[in-house]
Amino acid sequence: MFRDLVLKNRTCRRFDTSVSVSRDTLRDLVDLARQTASTGNQQPLKYYFATDAETKAIIDANITWAGYIPEWAGPTEDEAPSAYIVMLRDNTLSRAESPDTGIAAQTIMLAATEMGLGGCMFASMRKGLREALGLPDQFEIVLVLALGKPAEEVVLEPVDATGNIRYHRDDAGVHYVPKRSLDEVIVDL
Amino acid sequence: MFRDLVLKNRTCRRFDTSVSVSRDTLRDLVDLARQTASTGNQQPLKYYFATDAETKAIIDANITWAGYIPEWAGPTEDEAPSAYIVMLRDNTLSRAESPDTGIAAQTIMLAATEMGLGGCMFASMRKGLREALGLPDQFEIVLVLALGKPAEEVVLEPVDATGNIRYHRDDAGVHYVPKRSLDEVIVDL
Repeated sequence: MFRDLVLKNRTCRRFDTSVSVSRDTLRDLVDLARQTASTGNQQPLKYYFATDAETKAIIDANITWAGYIPEWAGPTEDEAPSAYIVMLRDNTLSRAESPDTGIAAQTIMLAATEMGLGGCMFASMRKGLREALGLPDQFEIVLVLALGKPAEEVVLEPVDATGNIRYHRDDAGVHYVPKRSLDEVIVDL
Repeated sequence: MFRDLVLKNRTCRRFDTSVSVSRDTLRDLVDLARQTASTGNQQPLKYYFATDAETKAIIDANITWAGYIPEWAGPTEDEAPSAYIVMLRDNTLSRAESPDTGIAAQTIMLAATEMGLGGCMFASMRKGLREALGLPDQFEIVLVLALGKPAEEVVLEPVDATGNIRYHRDDAGVHYVPKRSLDEVIVDL
């Protein structure tokens, strides 16, 4: 059931480092993403893989892991992601913001979930990341995906009466994510 | 297999009007979408349903169906979509463009595909649509989804040597969509 896959696919920030993610696996994920809907079918998205320690360290130094948990600096070496996919927009094909980014990223994350993997999407990163990775300036980084075998428990909970949507962790390290109710997100005039 | 679902989920613009899509079905689709990843977990997306003829006509008058097939004015009455979901960003929650839109839309389309439905995403629409639907100005329309039971054949093909990405139809009405190759979309420095 697709519903089970969507609910299983939770943003994850701590990983089992004993499980590697190969470049062949990343290619399989991108092979699906490239066959999804694209605005005007322009297909401006391109993909750069990081599976080696050096490249992963460059990426890790240019992203922020959990904005609502500032006391946590991000995964330690023994809970780090096994790979990153850096999603690029090729500005020679299109310069426009579009839903393509989310369409492709969600497809990759759902496919990864089916493989027993999981991860986290980063929509903001430091300005220097593209240059630090040696990527030509025709590319703009639109999203970074961290991937690996999840090693944390993530639980959805209703948004409380104050409307607080900040995720948080309990003493046992369980990660809670408040989600708006179905009635709140449907506009019924 | 999730791969099969992604490949089956093709943009569709002609529908079997004998199959209706109920508001309960639309609620089930949105119930999945609301539980997906959201930038900073802000969840600014809201959803407006159109299942009656009058509201669907307003939407149809404010979208363009197939930019690369200008000689086709869009689905006739006997091939029209059964429902629309108008995706809104609630500007009181966030004004930022984000991958949320594509993440939620792809989740809805994949869930619809599993139900035997399909559809088309519209990223641009005429400026007057929000007012024509009577939606308060705290909302911004970010995407329109047409939904129904597909009644057309859609075939993927490789992008040719000239780089032409325009979809097209043959005399039998089969719709062809060129997609870039895996090697073209992977950036390998």
